[in-house]
Amino acid sequence: MSSSTDASSSQPPVDVFELGDEHEQVVFCHDRPTGLRAIVAIHSTALGPALGGTRFYPYATTDDAVRDVLNLSRGMSYKAALAGLDLGGGKAVIIGDPATLKSEALLRAYGRFVQSLNGRYYTACDVGTYSEDMDHIARECDFVTGRTTAHGGAGDSSVLTAYGVFQGMRAAAEATWGEPTLGGRTVGVAGVGKVGHHLVRHLVEDGATVVVTDPHQPSVDRVREEFPQVTVVADTEALVGSALDVYAPCALGGALTDEVVETLSAVIVCGAANNQLAHPGVEKALEERGILYAPDYCVNSGGLIQVADELEGFSFERAQQRATGIFATTRSVFETARRDGVPPAVAADRLAEKRMRNVGRLRGLWLG
Amino acid sequence: MSSSTDASSSQPPVDVFELGDEHEQVVFCHDRPTGLRAIVAIHSTALGPALGGTRFYPYATTDDAVRDVLNLSRGMSYKAALAGLDLGGGKAVIIGDPATLKSEALLRAYGRFVQSLNGRYYTACDVGTYSEDMDHIARECDFVTGRTTAHGGAGDSSVLTAYGVFQGMRAAAEATWGEPTLGGRTVGVAGVGKVGHHLVRHLVEDGATVVVTDPHQPSVDRVREEFPQVTVVADTEALVGSALDVYAPCALGGALTDEVVETLSAVIVCGAANNQLAHPGVEKALEERGILYAPDYCVNSGGLIQVADELEGFSFERAQQRATGIFATTRSVFETARRDGVPPAVAADRLAEKRMRNVGRLRGLWLG
Repeated sequence: MSSSTDASSSQPPVDVFELGDEHEQVVFCHDRPTGLRAIVAIHSTALGPALGGTRFYPYATTDDAVRDVLNLSRGMSYKAALAGLDLGGGKAVIIGDPATLKSEALLRAYGRFVQSLNGRYYTACDVGTYSEDMDHIARECDFVTGRTTAHGGAGDSSVLTAYGVFQGMRAAAEATWGEPTLGGRTVGVAGVGKVGHHLVRHLVEDGATVVVTDPHQPSVDRVREEFPQVTVVADTEALVGSALDVYAPCALGGALTDEVVETLSAVIVCGAANNQLAHPGVEKALEERGILYAPDYCVNSGGLIQVADELEGFSFERAQQRATGIFATTRSVFETARRDGVPPAVAADRLAEKRMRNVGRLRGLWLG
Repeated sequence: MSSSTDASSSQPPVDVFELGDEHEQVVFCHDRPTGLRAIVAIHSTALGPALGGTRFYPYATTDDAVRDVLNLSRGMSYKAALAGLDLGGGKAVIIGDPATLKSEALLRAYGRFVQSLNGRYYTACDVGTYSEDMDHIARECDFVTGRTTAHGGAGDSSVLTAYGVFQGMRAAAEATWGEPTLGGRTVGVAGVGKVGHHLVRHLVEDGATVVVTDPHQPSVDRVREEFPQVTVVADTEALVGSALDVYAPCALGGALTDEVVETLSAVIVCGAANNQLAHPGVEKALEERGILYAPDYCVNSGGLIQVADELEGFSFERAQQRATGIFATTRSVFETARRDGVPPAVAADRLAEKRMRNVGRLRGLWLG
């Protein structure tokens, strides 16, 4: 599940049925007057309606957009399954530059298409879309989460994403040092935007020494102002080369390349970024170097838990309680990995697939 | 709107948004256990839900299937619009050989996907699917026409297709010879399968001399048995070279090639086949040779009228009355062509587009 937002368009042409061989449904939506070109991918509805955000991004080609939405929707199935949610995996992309193309009419046209899927797909925020956009979409559509709190939504989901990553990191600390705390450890956080910023707070409160980096200076300034004890380094390379106990990638996908794995002094990797493994096989390299990798979609599911809670009428307390469960889930991933003799990334996939298989088939039992 | 069922797979790769620039929605549906790979294309819902048959065909590539379904669904918009129906244009294809791939489970999986579109698309029979298949689909789906009469369906839609073509031919006769009858004229019918067979009956009853051809010998035998006065020729080439007043292509698309137009002695072309013009421009060549072309989708809409009637609870009498209107519609196409100084094919497109525009916008008027 590598990131492909930055996929080159020189790849071979996409055959939707071939590349989407695991997927149930891929929907191309077009509204010429508003310029809407959207693709909704439903990977699996074995556990419930497919939920996933809408990414608004200027893909170079339609094929790039298809590759990304297929990849991302698959990831959502695994994330929801492992988080114990009654949700399947889906994702959507809108092709274009949100700065110039986004409009009320376009968002509402998109809402009508999501509505046409009759609840098989629920949308939410993603790169390039915000809670205010979800409010517009919701004016045409019943299947929207991540709305503003003023409209009954869960609002900014970065709060519980960060909280969940912290819970996963505690489980990794327990597995590594015997105690579920980061107190006295040095944690490097790459990316202190919405999620990373909240994560720094949890770490500081837990007594960790925190080193951060972010190319976006205002984000760095905000962290430094709130937590003067935090150390700032110039870039991710410098961070990765520092003396760290834990490395937390909280920015772009593909953070864990072969070079990073070779360089890293940290013994735990646990962060909020999606698709951290740059390519298949990195999970093995991490294990061989004795680095415990907390699988990305296992620990970063707090945001999904937060927006999913909106479906029942949002309660922050209930959602937070559920996100606390990421500690236990991460622990069981490490236990499965040990028992099966596989890297944690493989163990997480196995647990997710097992739940999709075993719980998913239950709808086959007739209830009248 | 040329036929592309036989499209070569050596064409450039399809970009769904580019080739489907006029389309609203294209849905790829996949069910691995049954081998279902279906594509539903919704061209326009300006006038109502998109209706169009499901073609079950062993396309060589996914792109071939996409090209065909985009082309066919566009044709359905024009057909429904010109026929005065409250229907938009859609079509679906299932990729594979129906002889080996078709199963109850596959058809029902397909039905669930059609159901998921919540009534934006209604399906029906097409090449490779039959009323019995629609009955299976209807077990999972509310949006199915063309079911068997035993299940409340309109059954075999070739009856009113042939009837409508006959009405269109009467209008062409009126425009050409002043009287809406084929009595005393020689009509060549290429293809005497389901539709052509019924057409021959109407022609014989109207007093026409009929010449037929069909590569499928049992179809020829059946016609010869019922109507011994009909002349049979060896193949389409022989038919086209005969002395004819009217030529009625009732088999494959693309019947009207440049060569056929040059050879033809007929002064009217009016038949049941879809996509008769082999390429854009043939409509002009016909006009230059003084041949009156009754546009295919104008005269062959009787079948669509028949299955559409099923949505109100099927009444053959009501559907036949509506199909009688094809006479008036064809007449108004010829009048528009004369008035605007364009070939009838262009006039038909203009009338269809005008109705989609003028009636389609009415839903913009708020009714509370």
